[in-house]
Amino acid sequence: MERPGTVAIVGVGLIGGSIGLALRKRSLARHVVGIGRDSRSLDLAISLGALDEGTTDLAAGVAGAEIVVVCTPVTRIAEDIIAAAKAAPRDVLLTDAGSTKRGLVGRIEREPAARDAFVGAHPIAGSERKGVAHAMPDLFEGRLCVLTPTVSTPDDRVARAKAFWSSLGCRVECTSPEEHDRILSLTSHLPHVVASALAAAIPAGCLPMAAGAYRDGTRVAASDGSLWAGIFRENREHLLAALDGFEERIEAFRRALESSEPGRLERCWEEGRSSRVQYREADGQALLDS
Amino acid sequence: MERPGTVAIVGVGLIGGSIGLALRKRSLARHVVGIGRDSRSLDLAISLGALDEGTTDLAAGVAGAEIVVVCTPVTRIAEDIIAAAKAAPRDVLLTDAGSTKRGLVGRIEREPAARDAFVGAHPIAGSERKGVAHAMPDLFEGRLCVLTPTVSTPDDRVARAKAFWSSLGCRVECTSPEEHDRILSLTSHLPHVVASALAAAIPAGCLPMAAGAYRDGTRVAASDGSLWAGIFRENREHLLAALDGFEERIEAFRRALESSEPGRLERCWEEGRSSRVQYREADGQALLDS
Repeated sequence: MERPGTVAIVGVGLIGGSIGLALRKRSLARHVVGIGRDSRSLDLAISLGALDEGTTDLAAGVAGAEIVVVCTPVTRIAEDIIAAAKAAPRDVLLTDAGSTKRGLVGRIEREPAARDAFVGAHPIAGSERKGVAHAMPDLFEGRLCVLTPTVSTPDDRVARAKAFWSSLGCRVECTSPEEHDRILSLTSHLPHVVASALAAAIPAGCLPMAAGAYRDGTRVAASDGSLWAGIFRENREHLLAALDGFEERIEAFRRALESSEPGRLERCWEEGRSSRVQYREADGQALLDS
Repeated sequence: MERPGTVAIVGVGLIGGSIGLALRKRSLARHVVGIGRDSRSLDLAISLGALDEGTTDLAAGVAGAEIVVVCTPVTRIAEDIIAAAKAAPRDVLLTDAGSTKRGLVGRIEREPAARDAFVGAHPIAGSERKGVAHAMPDLFEGRLCVLTPTVSTPDDRVARAKAFWSSLGCRVECTSPEEHDRILSLTSHLPHVVASALAAAIPAGCLPMAAGAYRDGTRVAASDGSLWAGIFRENREHLLAALDGFEERIEAFRRALESSEPGRLERCWEEGRSSRVQYREADGQALLDS
């Protein structure tokens, strides 16, 4: 792939800012334009090295772009992609970084100009912190980016989206928007709800005696509420099903704890342990456990 | 406090081994004896610098000890303390590192020799890893150690226990065994059950798309099952109450997700977020969130 001329980033927070930093630090684009609603935040992004220039005018910002990547909250992505399709050059690649896919891909595909230039993407990386001040150029290094092209997506856009996300350091895989949302309801949205419920269930007065299990188990509960409420609503049906499965596991623990049957609690624990250890080993973090 | 002559550690795993390393690296004791059931594991502890000598004979190991610290699983601590009381010098300090207190303190206090030398302790530090191979000399640095003396505990033993745990780097606080178990059911035992249930609820086939929320939210699910099943059983009543409170929070999320009431999901999220952010700030981990 030739180095793109101009990349426009719509929404310059943690994710958009990290894309800008990666593009500029690796010289992956000749020019990086940021589009946002708050000019102070764009100025901060420029001073941090994430952008060459910033504007609050989306149409002006995308007018000369070869690639537009929309990093706004999932509830706004479709309208931003559709607006970008109207103002960007005809051969633009439109992509996004949203944590849900089915709803917004459906809305985008009802607009032909947007549909013909768009490849849905979800780089699975992030943090409980928000804002460009927390952006990192290596946020995507070695992380999975899931692309969700459909039968309507032109092949050349899929190839360009793969090249773009790979250039940021991602491993790229394709799946359907539906399958993406089903899997992420389990691997991401459910853990967020669980972390938040756990944080809310523990009275503040007890926290001086909290340690690692609390700290790690609730870390993502500090994330931004409007962002996550939007994600949960976009993926409501899958998340409700994921909650059903989780509550069944909690109930199995409760029954094991109430039971005097030898080994029952241990077997209940082992189902979670074996899965987590398998993940740790696959993730290359395994150390000798003796 | 004068430097103790001999400290005996019963159970030389992650916690016992870390105590041994801290004592020897800081020259806090003239001699550190480890008592365990597996002589290979004691040899490993010696080679790692956690012990001066090891023995599988508890009575012999504690015979010359000024301090005996029992680091076996909670289901075995009371019997190990009682056995140590019989074999150790009359002026010994007996203490432990168990994650539950009420049940074992009650069992120990029914034995006068043990009761008159024992101060229950829980250094709130650990890891999902087990075994002396993962021991660390600074595991206790800055961590809270909760002592649970009762009306039966001699004052001089409380003072010596405070000095001992402080020498390892702990901040020391006292509370009742009952209050300790109530608080820890919320801050530690509940987060462990939740992590395990979460790990079990997510099919292995989805894990390639898992990221930070899953990784941190399930980390402690990799912990040892027999150890944690023992802790859960020892603290069954409090843990069941903690599970009730947690399930109410999950149900509140479910109802908010099913509802179309504007802002309800955001308010539900905010209850967990504000608590978690408060903890992060108290924990000195706050960074500028913009």
